[in-house]
Amino acid sequence: MAAARDHQARLTKPAGSLGALEELSVRLSGLAGVCPPPLPTPATVAVFAGDHGVHAQGVTPWPQEVTAQMVANFVAGGAVVNAFARQAGADVMVVDVGVAVPLHGGATLLDANVRRGTADLSVGPALTREEALAALEVGVGVARALVTSGAKCLLTGDMGIANTTPAAALIAVFTGSDPAAATGRGTGIDDAMLAHKVDVVRRALALHAPDPADPLGVLAAVGGLEHAALTGFILGAAAERVPAIVDGVIAASAALAAAAFAPDSVAAMVAGHRSAEPGASVALAHLGLEPLLDLGMRLGEGSGAALALPVVQAAVRVLHEVATFDSAGVSEK
Amino acid sequence: MAAARDHQARLTKPAGSLGALEELSVRLSGLAGVCPPPLPTPATVAVFAGDHGVHAQGVTPWPQEVTAQMVANFVAGGAVVNAFARQAGADVMVVDVGVAVPLHGGATLLDANVRRGTADLSVGPALTREEALAALEVGVGVARALVTSGAKCLLTGDMGIANTTPAAALIAVFTGSDPAAATGRGTGIDDAMLAHKVDVVRRALALHAPDPADPLGVLAAVGGLEHAALTGFILGAAAERVPAIVDGVIAASAALAAAAFAPDSVAAMVAGHRSAEPGASVALAHLGLEPLLDLGMRLGEGSGAALALPVVQAAVRVLHEVATFDSAGVSEK
Repeated sequence: MAAARDHQARLTKPAGSLGALEELSVRLSGLAGVCPPPLPTPATVAVFAGDHGVHAQGVTPWPQEVTAQMVANFVAGGAVVNAFARQAGADVMVVDVGVAVPLHGGATLLDANVRRGTADLSVGPALTREEALAALEVGVGVARALVTSGAKCLLTGDMGIANTTPAAALIAVFTGSDPAAATGRGTGIDDAMLAHKVDVVRRALALHAPDPADPLGVLAAVGGLEHAALTGFILGAAAERVPAIVDGVIAASAALAAAAFAPDSVAAMVAGHRSAEPGASVALAHLGLEPLLDLGMRLGEGSGAALALPVVQAAVRVLHEVATFDSAGVSEK
Repeated sequence: MAAARDHQARLTKPAGSLGALEELSVRLSGLAGVCPPPLPTPATVAVFAGDHGVHAQGVTPWPQEVTAQMVANFVAGGAVVNAFARQAGADVMVVDVGVAVPLHGGATLLDANVRRGTADLSVGPALTREEALAALEVGVGVARALVTSGAKCLLTGDMGIANTTPAAALIAVFTGSDPAAATGRGTGIDDAMLAHKVDVVRRALALHAPDPADPLGVLAAVGGLEHAALTGFILGAAAERVPAIVDGVIAASAALAAAAFAPDSVAAMVAGHRSAEPGASVALAHLGLEPLLDLGMRLGEGSGAALALPVVQAAVRVLHEVATFDSAGVSEK
């Protein structure tokens, strides 16, 4: 990190003129343990998909079948995350870690289904500890496999109708926030449904009294299969010292769980964007992460991470390619 | 624009979930007069370079020779804008419209020198009206030539030691702001030099009393050769109905001049980022433009425009590539 700071000061630009990109380049040098760090390419968005028993509580107007339909859309390349990944030169890999129905995918769909959807977290634990651990290990395994295959940057993606409800519960537990501050409108619900959703989260926390010092217990009680998998995915990236670009509120809730398991894993996290979901900002503030983009997006899928990828690549590219005052023969002030 | 709004509503995502990108896609459809509009690629950053007589007033700690040295750096591909353009797949073209010394460049340096630097705007007009018009026409010509050669997106770039001083003067004139609000630290000057710089701008406005209804007169009195060229470049993009991604404070001051010539040209402007220079925000607010990125950058060169290019491309790509609920067989809420 010191070498990166020194190098930034020698580049042909006024000191500090690249703002947040300079500090990002320093962080990524520290993560890699070398300056310059590897260019964050090739990169892969891993979209972990799962369903949710809490859907039965009426926390979203979308039918549960949309999870599987959107998985098919990802595999066919027709979703926003596919378009953004193509724009950024990244791959998309779809992982069924907990979809409620059997899926028939192509080469870009990994079948790693741990359970066909969670149980309703408002009436009992969403998962057993064993199931939560198995989903987490799916994420670790995907991260390690991608890095072994050459990926220099991992991007979090998710799909799961109703999955902002467990995300809100996770954020409330790990940050100590009130459920009203951690819960948002997800795909765009009205005031009445939002009030009900907050109440569902509040009741779940009262029922389980999850202990934030036991992150696996928290994931089992009020999490989701994709949340647990993303937790492992981020931990896997950190273990491999590869940056994990965190997308929106689902990814941010998983990032909190990852930090609860291993505080040092925060060093591998890059907040791609500030989701319009309020819980995402609560989570990022708790982690001390400042997002790169703030465009009012709230889609999930990994779309905000994919949109941020070129910014992360540009920050590192500066350390690789920009001339120094000496090498370019430019006078200093 | 109506067709773009309708199309956005049919895509496989919750309505409004792409935030600012949705409105951007609508604006660019209106600019092109077709939905979807062309993908903004290929794209070129045109870096207009000039020197400034006001440098003699001590408004920057950098020697004037750095302008020519940085032009050589651009031509060699070693500056930040080169790295960011490579990351985004954009070309960089360097235009000498007003550098103080003769330059020897390669194929990517266009010699269109109108005058070897402006006169000191604090003691007399920076340019004659004829010179300001000639520089403006250089910009129009570059824009038209690039579009004729196939460019679907133009990005503003600039280089000129001391050029934030004329930019501040232009912003004060066109927005009616106090010079203290329009003037910033540029490459990073101290409090004493900033106070002096504000005073230089204030004295120049008192001396010339520029009339914002006469934008050519304003550019001649207190502008710069690259500011005038960028004004023409943006007007040329608008005339060709191609988006112009506006970089930082220099580009924003030129955008104000372009809007003074032709208010409809604002429809072609996309604010790439919020520069840390306060005058840039004053100018963008006056134009009603919300920047895409806000990363604390203040480098110029076109760096912020180049960093924003993938975001603009992603916004348009959604209209081209994302499946609809019908085509993908996804249920609606």
